[in-house]
Formats: sequence, structure tokens, C-alpha cells
Amino acid sequence: MSEADFKYIIDTFFALFAMVLIIFMVPGFAMLEAGLVRTKNVSSVLTVNTMIYAVASMAFLLVGYSLAFGSWENSSMSIWAAFLFQMAFVGKTINIMSGGVSERVKIIPLMIFTAVMGAVLYPLVVNISWGADMISGTFLDIDMYDLAGSTVIHSTGGWALLAAILIMGARKGRYRDGKIKVVPASNIPLVVLGAFLLWIGWFGFNGGSVGSISSVENANAVAKTIMNTNTAGLAGAIIAAVIMYARYKLLDITMILNGALGGLVAITAGPDLYDIYTPILIGAIGGALVVFAIPLFDKLKLDDPVGALSVHLVNGIWGTLAVGIFVEDISIMAQLKGVVVVGVFAFVSSYIVIFIINKIAPFRADDDAQVEGLDVNEVGVEAYPEFKRAI
Amino acid sequence: MSEADFKYIIDTFFALFAMVLIIFMVPGFAMLEAGLVRTKNVSSVLTVNTMIYAVASMAFLLVGYSLAFGSWENSSMSIWAAFLFQMAFVGKTINIMSGGVSERVKIIPLMIFTAVMGAVLYPLVVNISWGADMISGTFLDIDMYDLAGSTVIHSTGGWALLAAILIMGARKGRYRDGKIKVVPASNIPLVVLGAFLLWIGWFGFNGGSVGSISSVENANAVAKTIMNTNTAGLAGAIIAAVIMYARYKLLDITMILNGALGGLVAITAGPDLYDIYTPILIGAIGGALVVFAIPLFDKLKLDDPVGALSVHLVNGIWGTLAVGIFVEDISIMAQLKGVVVVGVFAFVSSYIVIFIINKIAPFRADDDAQVEGLDVNEVGVEAYPEFKRAI
Amino acid sequence: MSEADFKYIIDTFFALFAMVLIIFMVPGFAMLEAGLVRTKNVSSVLTVNTMIYAVASMAFLLVGYSLAFGSWENSSMSIWAAFLFQMAFVGKTINIMSGGVSERVKIIPLMIFTAVMGAVLYPLVVNISWGADMISGTFLDIDMYDLAGSTVIHSTGGWALLAAILIMGARKGRYRDGKIKVVPASNIPLVVLGAFLLWIGWFGFNGGSVGSISSVENANAVAKTIMNTNTAGLAGAIIAAVIMYARYKLLDITMILNGALGGLVAITAGPDLYDIYTPILIGAIGGALVVFAIPLFDKLKLDDPVGALSVHLVNGIWGTLAVGIFVEDISIMAQLKGVVVVGVFAFVSSYIVIFIINKIAPFRADDDAQVEGLDVNEVGVEAYPEFKRAI
Repeated sequence: MSEADFKYIIDTFFALFAMVLIIFMVPGFAMLEAGLVRTKNVSSVLTVNTMIYAVASMAFLLVGYSLAFGSWENSSMSIWAAFLFQMAFVGKTINIMSGGVSERVKIIPLMIFTAVMGAVLYPLVVNISWGADMISGTFLDIDMYDLAGSTVIHSTGGWALLAAILIMGARKGRYRDGKIKVVPASNIPLVVLGAFLLWIGWFGFNGGSVGSISSVENANAVAKTIMNTNTAGLAGAIIAAVIMYARYKLLDITMILNGALGGLVAITAGPDLYDIYTPILIGAIGGALVVFAIPLFDKLKLDDPVGALSVHLVNGIWGTLAVGIFVEDISIMAQLKGVVVVGVFAFVSSYIVIFIINKIAPFRADDDAQVEGLDVNEVGVEAYPEFKRAI
Repeated sequence: MSEADFKYIIDTFFALFAMVLIIFMVPGFAMLEAGLVRTKNVSSVLTVNTMIYAVASMAFLLVGYSLAFGSWENSSMSIWAAFLFQMAFVGKTINIMSGGVSERVKIIPLMIFTAVMGAVLYPLVVNISWGADMISGTFLDIDMYDLAGSTVIHSTGGWALLAAILIMGARKGRYRDGKIKVVPASNIPLVVLGAFLLWIGWFGFNGGSVGSISSVENANAVAKTIMNTNTAGLAGAIIAAVIMYARYKLLDITMILNGALGGLVAITAGPDLYDIYTPILIGAIGGALVVFAIPLFDKLKLDDPVGALSVHLVNGIWGTLAVGIFVEDISIMAQLKGVVVVGVFAFVSSYIVIFIINKIAPFRADDDAQVEGLDVNEVGVEAYPEFKRAI
Repeated sequence: MSEADFKYIIDTFFALFAMVLIIFMVPGFAMLEAGLVRTKNVSSVLTVNTMIYAVASMAFLLVGYSLAFGSWENSSMSIWAAFLFQMAFVGKTINIMSGGVSERVKIIPLMIFTAVMGAVLYPLVVNISWGADMISGTFLDIDMYDLAGSTVIHSTGGWALLAAILIMGARKGRYRDGKIKVVPASNIPLVVLGAFLLWIGWFGFNGGSVGSISSVENANAVAKTIMNTNTAGLAGAIIAAVIMYARYKLLDITMILNGALGGLVAITAGPDLYDIYTPILIGAIGGALVVFAIPLFDKLKLDDPVGALSVHLVNGIWGTLAVGIFVEDISIMAQLKGVVVVGVFAFVSSYIVIFIINKIAPFRADDDAQVEGLDVNEVGVEAYPEFKRAI
């Protein structure tokens, strides 16, 4: 067997392994968000997550992949495995956005946006960052290092979410008389399960983004990437726990998990580039940023029930800049330019698309539907019909 | 290292990878069904799923594998990996059957049936379809293409379920005064989690059924199989959503997931044979079939709480025929003969075995036990003892 | 490509695969324990499981790995993959301990213990059993066969738990007036989900412990190890079901799952050494031991809400001795010496550490906090705030 064939086989197998891990993020996001929202909106959130996977992946198959990568050509592995790995990413960007507008978003306009995002917007971001690079040579050309998408996935999703929140507004009654109404998560075991499915998925996300495991060098890069990814998650969880305990003498599990996710987002731009200790610092800063950003967004009346702006947007930016700060050969200005170009494109294009869709099919469920719950109004299926409500 | 050794190692590793994915279907079926039934029957459904895995796998280890494949001989991979991959399939056939008789089936007779199915009935189906082929040369000899078991697994399980429903009847009070009592699912997050664990398991089921990843050709076949499998699931979910929205302006999540599963069953006979667009059509038809079949079986008073007849039997047949329709070199008549021969064998043999067991240990829980719930009567453990019932 | 490079690549990939499976045990333990405790302590248990993963892994990264293995040197695979595989084990030992002191343990002292265990105690056990072997040549030198840790992981965790229970005492009101108060599990689907995530994780735990899949011999050893691991779990589940049915005519699902886990612990010392039938016997004895040990520990007033002493300590010992009994070339006395040396070290050192920590930061939540629930007092987040309590 030729070495090329060997590499082709191993890298195909590895891409499928990584893709499978990423697909665990579909139930991961679904469980996380279903646990964080109130019981009256759980079926709605689950329907949204399921349909995002279906619609975004289908849009990427029919249109997006070609737009991002130019053509369905032979790659160094099976093209079908390469497609599947890339397809597994698509929905994530929209999951980030959809989670943050939970408890008031209508599903049909969200699905229209999902189709546009999966077919056009996200593929364009990939095109200029990782793909065929249609802006190469222009003054917009970016030369950012972003291995697995701190910017391409996470802050892109975060910018789309910010656009959506600005257009849709907060949940009814969330900010009233200068006060912020606390809305407790309805099912903590689901939150924990979801967070760990995401964590495991991240190993595929980041490890798979090395693109090959079929040489000694690449095997080391993949293993180190997964190790550093994990370390940043650990550090994010620990720092969030320390801050919460120092402030309240309580260990708020939802904040600890958001801290871990913040660390994971932050490491995602360069997990292959660091020594094994730097991720502790990057992840810890990421976790701390989440803890401080969540109340800050609430002060700004940017209503985000799952903390997605803090986890994905803030840390997507932080993680991308961190590569410029901690890695000698990488220019922080190039990283910053990438953050800005992608950010402006993602925010403006999402804003325009959401604005237009909103004129035709309004995103925001009306007040009565929000009070009664979206499950009854959008899905027709209550999440827990036999469990008597305490509140 | 010789090329044969290389292939042996890689294919062993790949079979173990695929097997692990399939084992995720054990909690997958368990969560799906636990979410679909009423809280008073949840522990019972979970016990059934757990014990099916234990009993069917043990029966296959002690008896079934030899019956299906003739002998424990060297294969092109580690024989232990080959066994594990085949063993992972066994319980699925019975899961299909057990899910459809939920909320009234007693566990002990079901376990006796499980032992017979795992030791004899399923291995015989495998024998004539994929294995030692004991009917080769007779007029019953079948030449059906069924890569991963649209017929061998899914419609076999579906026929066994039909036999069981005919013998056991509907749940008490389900069809009364010409009306159908709606029984809402008790825990939608579990339904979604279960469905996605099944979906992920399917990648191992179908991808692993290619049997080897250790050549460029096979690596492509595996990747394409997984891609097409996924595509059919996407299409099934989307079409179910479209139909539900068109009819009711609601996006019933349980129907969407059943649509996805219908698409996955339908693609299972030939995911390696299609181009990348045909699975959209096959999966969409599969999803639509589920949506229309579920109320139809209810009209026929075939009481199936989880929609297993629609998902597995109807789409097992559709998927097997689809190979004959869409693949040039495959005869639709050969496919039809396979469907009929396996179907008649599975239905008749299941019917006889269930009928005999039923005389000794009746399958049907008595009316009082059904009203009180099987958890108290069969398991002695309530699923959610601290949650107050709303209904 | 050289054969050494091939082996390096494949074994790195395989170690990452095994490590990912083990990480599924983090949500596995979390879901299992969250389902077994009362709703008022669910967030607490989840926080404990999350923080154990974070703190133990970080301690192992910073200190423990060097202590166990001497140095971060090149291995036959990527050192980062080797680290990740070993790191995935660490938290498990503490999970075993933490589960058994659920519903009365305070999180901060437990985290201090976790740091000591992950940095020092567990690494020392690994050192003398699998690692750099600092006691080699002394009279304490052990020559036990323990492939994946019946003793090194499971009974070590069990001994730490025993020490903790002796120091902390039982839950308030559990043993009163000579009676044992039954505390029903609050969420059975989570118990089942958790148990199967553990079961799947075990494939990585034991299979990965072979250390290599990159030769025909090792590929067979890995596959046989996974097969035998699974078989013992099946047998443990079946025997527990048979005993429960014989006694009570009920199939208690929590006992069946504990039986399966008992079988899995018991096989863990030598899954690569047995023929394919011996694991049935070892697992069945393991399952039976659990069923009989659980009420026995209650009679001894050793309060263990999740049955961890029975599953992990009893079967850790049984499994280690079983290798001496069933494998010709292995001395039962050597196995027994390993059990005793590791057991004495684990129990005494854990006892001392817990005793000291307990003087500074008491482990036991006060009675009022136990009555109100640890979620309110330790975490500040209720697990199911919207579900009205029935009891």
C-alpha cells in the first residue's frame, strides 16, 4: 500500500471520528438550552435545535459547501468525509444565535434565517477565512490564524445573535421598572448533560480541524490540540467556581459550566500552537470573562437566556486575539483585522437578513404567546405534561 | 508490516468504533421510549430496554452467532470485533418490537421472547440474508441488497411487533366508543436525546456495515454511506415538519423526529449505492410515510405508542424496494422477494413464538396494572416519585 | 512510512478514541448520581461531579502525572495522547468516593480532597501499580495483574469512600430507631442514561488499557478485552434481575444496573486474559455480590446512597482475585498482596487526609442544610424549580 493511500484511509477514518463527536453537539446544545429555559418553552427550544440541524445541513449540502470551498473536488481524504466534517460545523453557528433568542423566537422565521445562514452567510465567512478565499488580494484580505473557529464559528454566531436581539428585543417582562427578573433554569441535569456533550464534541471540533492525523507530526498536533482544548475548559470551570464562591459562598453550576464553555471557545483559535500551560491562562480569562459579561449584557438590556453572547461572542474575540498575544510568530494586528472584518460582515449581513425576514414573518412571538409558552403556540406539544407546575 | 496486517488492524479498530456508536442506540431507544410513554410506565420501559440488551446479547453470544454465521472462524478482522459489531445489532430488532407494545407488556414473557429472538429467530434471518445462507439453492433463496438491514433489522422487528400487537391488543381505554384517546408523551427532552443517540448510532450501523475501511475504495464507501444516511434523516425531518406545519401550523417535535427516523430506516438498505441527492428523495418519502402511517395504524386499532410500525416496518419495506427503484443494476423483483420471504418468516415465526409464550406466561398486563402503571406492578420503582402528577 | 511511525499514528488515534469514551463517564457518573439522589440534592451532586473532573484533571496535569510516571517523556504514541488517556482515569476514583457520600457532603472540603487525590494519592497508587514503581525491590513490591484498575481505580475509590463514610457518618435520619429509611431515586431515566454512558466508557477504559492496537496481536487483545468487558456487564445485569425477581417478583431497574456495573468492575482486572465464557461467571458473581452487599452495608450503617461500596470496593477486590483464580499463570497470592497493599495505602492515606481536612473545613453539611437540601445551601440553584414536590 502506498503512503498516500495509507494517509487517505487514516484521515478519512479520523475525519469521520471527529465528525461523529461534533454531531454529539446537536443533542448537546439541545439539552443545554432545554435545561436553561422555562418548562413552557422546552419543546420549542428542542424543535428549534432539531430543525436547525436539518435545515442548515441541507442548505450546506445543496448550496453552502460549494460556496465555501469552490468545488466538490478530491481532497487528501474521502471528499464525503471532508464534507461531513464541514457540515457538522454549520448548524453550530446558528445554535449559538438561536439559544440567545430563546423564549420569544418564532420557529418559521428562524428557519428561513437558518437556510440563508447555512446556504450563504456562513459559507461566505468560511470562504474568506478557511476556504476558496474570494477576497484574496483585496484590502479586506485577512490573514488570521483561527484553527477551529473562535471567530469563524463562535463570534460569527455571536454577532448574528446580537443582531437578532437588537431587532427582536427582550422577553416580555424581563426588564421592568429598572429591575431584572430572574428566570431560573428548569432542569439542571439537562444543562450538565448538554454541557458535557458539547465539551466532548469540542475534541472533534478542534482535534479534527488539524485536518490530518496520518503523520507523526500531525498525530502529535491532534493530541496536543485535544489536550489544550480540554485544559482550557478545566481552567474556565475552576475560575468561574472560584469567583462565584468568593462572591456568594455558593457554587452556581450553570455559571461554572458557562465558564468551562467560555474557556473552550477561547482556546479554539489556536489549541495546536500553545505549550501545555498557556491554555490554563487563556481558559481562566475566558471563564472570568463569562462571569463578568453575563450581568453586563443584562445591564445593557440585551436579553440572552443562555449566556451565548458572553460565552461565544466575547470569548470568540478573546480567543482569536489570544493567539496574537501568546504565539510569537502571529501578529496580533492580523488577528484583530480578522476579528473586525469577519465581525462586521457577520453582524451587518445577519442584521440585514433578519431585518428583511422580520418584515415578512416577524421573529418575535406576541406577548400572550410568551406568557402562555411557546410550546403550546409553536409546537403543540408540552414538554412535561404530567408534571404539575410549582411556579 | 504486510498490507493484510494493516487491513486487519484498521478494520478491527473501525469495527470497534462502529460497534461503540451502535451501543449508543441502547440508551437511545431507552430515552426515546421513556420520553414517549406516560410517567407511570417509564421505569418499566427502561427495564425492558436494559434487559433486552442483556438477554439478547447473551443469547447471541451463546447460540445466535454460530447459527447466523456458521462458525467462529477467522475473519478479515479480529473475530471478537466482528462478533461485537454483529452483537450490537441483535437487540435492536427486539427494541423495535418492545417499544410498540409499551404501556401494557409484561417483562418476563417479553424476556423469554427476547431470548428466542436473539438465539434463533434473528440469527436465522441473518443466516439467509447476510450469513451462512442455509436456503441457498432452494426456491426460497433470496438475492436482496440490504446493506445494513432495512429488511433484516427494521422490518423484521416491525413484523414481530405486528404479531405482538395482534396477540396482545391495544392498551386499556385507548380505543373507546369509536374514539382514539390521545396519550401525550411525558418527557420531550428525553425523546429528542434518544432520537439523536439513535441518529448517531446509525452512522455506526450503516457505515460499519460496509465491513471495511482499509482501502481507498472502502474508505470512500464508508464516508459516502454515512453521508447518505445523514442526508436521508435530514430530509425525513424536514418533510415531516413541512407536512405538520401545512396541516396544523404547528411543528410537532415528536412527529419531526419520527420523520427523521423514518428517513434513516429507509436509507439503510442501500446508503452506499446512491449519489448524494437521491437520499433526499428516499428520506423525504420515508418521513412522509411516517406522518401518514401513524394515524392509519390508529384507525386500524393497531396500538403502537411510539410509532414503531410506521418508522420501522413501513420504511423498512420502502427502503428495501427503493434500492430496486433507484439503483440500475438491482432488480426490484429481487428486493420484493427478499421483503416477502423475510417478512413472512419473521411474522409467522414471531407470531407462533409469541402465541406459545402467551399461553404459558401472558404478555398483557391486566387492566388494573395498566391503570396503576407498570412501574409499580412490574418494576417496583417509580420513575419520578417526587414529582407531583398534573394529570 | 516506517512501521514504527505507523504504530505511533494508529496508537495515538486509538488512545484518543479510548480517552473520548472514558470522558463520556463524566456525564455518566453525573447522570447516574443525579438520578439516584433526591431532587433537593441534585444540583449539588452535579456540581460535585463537574468540579471533580475540573480539579482532579488539573491537579494531575500540574503534579500527578509526573509523580505517577516519572517524567513527560516520549512514549510509543504521542505523549499528549498518553497523558489524556491517563488523565481521563483520575476523576473516576474520586467520583466513586463522592457518589457514596452524596446528600450530606459539602463541596469545598471535597474539592480540597480532590486536589490531594488527583495530585498525590492516586498518582502514588498508579506509581506502585502501573507506573515508575517507587517501591520496586522493597518488601512492599507488588506484582499484581490489574489491566484497567479493578484495584487501582475501583477499590482505591472504594477505600477512600469507606474512610469518608467512617468520618462523616450517615445522612441525617437515615438510620433511626433501628430502622432504615428508604430514600427512593428521584429520576430513573437519568440513572439508566448514566449507567449506559458508564458502560460505553468502560470499553475505552478497558480496551484502551491494552495500550496499543497497532499489531494483529494487540488488535485481537483490544477486541477481546472489549468483548469480555461487555459480557461481564451483561451477566451482572441478568443475575441481578434473576435474584430480584426470585425474591420480590419485581425487576428493580436500579439494582439491575448496579449488577451490571458490578460485573463491569469485576472484569476490569483481567478482561484480556479470559476465554469468552469465563466473564459470564465473573460478571454473574459480581452482580450477585452487589445485590447482597447493598443491604449488608446498610446493616452496618455505612450509608452509601448510590451503592458505590458494593459496586466498586467489593467487586474491585473480587475482580482482582478472580484473575488469580481463573488464569493459570497468575498467582492468587500476588493478586491478594496487591489488593492488601493498595487497599491499606488507599484507606489509611485517604483517612488521614480526610481527617485533617475535616478539622479545618468539615465535610458534613449540618442537619438543617441536609433537611432543606444541599442545592439551596451549597449551589444556590434548584435542580427542578418548576416541578411541584409530591413528597
